[in-house]
Amino acid sequence: MDVFIEPIGRLINQFSKLPGVGKKTAQRYAYKIIGMSEAEARQFAESILYCKQKVRYCKVCGNFTENEVCDICARRDGSVICVVKEPKDVIAMEKLHEFKGVYHVLHGVISPMDGVGPNDIRIKELLARIDGGVKEVIMATNPDVEGEATAMYIARLIKPLGVNVTRLAHGLPVGGELEYADEVTLSRALSERKSI
Amino acid sequence: MDVFIEPIGRLINQFSKLPGVGKKTAQRYAYKIIGMSEAEARQFAESILYCKQKVRYCKVCGNFTENEVCDICARRDGSVICVVKEPKDVIAMEKLHEFKGVYHVLHGVISPMDGVGPNDIRIKELLARIDGGVKEVIMATNPDVEGEATAMYIARLIKPLGVNVTRLAHGLPVGGELEYADEVTLSRALSERKSI
Repeated sequence: MDVFIEPIGRLINQFSKLPGVGKKTAQRYAYKIIGMSEAEARQFAESILYCKQKVRYCKVCGNFTENEVCDICARRDGSVICVVKEPKDVIAMEKLHEFKGVYHVLHGVISPMDGVGPNDIRIKELLARIDGGVKEVIMATNPDVEGEATAMYIARLIKPLGVNVTRLAHGLPVGGELEYADEVTLSRALSERKSI
Repeated sequence: MDVFIEPIGRLINQFSKLPGVGKKTAQRYAYKIIGMSEAEARQFAESILYCKQKVRYCKVCGNFTENEVCDICARRDGSVICVVKEPKDVIAMEKLHEFKGVYHVLHGVISPMDGVGPNDIRIKELLARIDGGVKEVIMATNPDVEGEATAMYIARLIKPLGVNVTRLAHGLPVGGELEYADEVTLSRALSERKSI
């Protein structure tokens, strides 16, 4: 690190904190900043502060928002709730432009290995939202072990309340090849086959 | 872009300006910032401004510096000048801890294809540095067409001044395999072979 002068070294350290960024990449980013105009660099720095200051979590669904309640919770039909792990999953769903209900962001999944229990994620907040108006809860956690376990756990809590709980379908990815599908996926695709 | 709220969208745009960063990566970086504490985000933003404000070019060699003249120019033996294309090449050389002379950063190479002529890079400044005290100029531009052409051009200007001009050696990279060496490199390695 001693080959860099202090302001550059400091910036490289900061960039190294970003996910997947090593020393070499951080160095490239730092050079890019040095090559920017004063105004551009200021804009960059300000957008970091602005984002950090403005963005908070919706008090209803836990998604990112600028206001107390996010636009989705404020405007959409609340009878269908899609439960996801993280705010970025909301964005993945929204890109479909198909789902017209609201979301509930858990901010994690149950994972005993990592010491995350049911009380560490936003399950209580989800249960509090279930009232007479909610008809369906779609469990859209990731199709991995923790995601499945969390979906099952939550389903068991919600079903007694008389709400329809569904799970995203498992099967072959569209455009994929049978040859390259892993065994578990193929087995799920087979057992959940549909008549055509 | 409409799936992101404005402060996040703005930050993603900024991160997308970094070299090699697409929308998806920029999104991951933005989430990282949102996940940071207020103090961490502030530190990040400030290090960008600090770097941009503090770093300027040494008026002698053109390398990055915090002062008018960089530490290398101020302290080292000026009789050997190593000519490089960019400040990051200085760092590559410095990491060797072997070269004890000074540098001259051209800030580019001659490249008619890109409209860069001899007057667009810091050649005049280099010539101005050549006085009785300079014994050797090492041309350490990249081993590509533009780098070679620039080295040749500068060598032709400096040699008449009675200064020894050298060029970094070409040949097989250490640890490489003959099988994978490109033909030009192998041909250079052969023609520049040494007795052992």
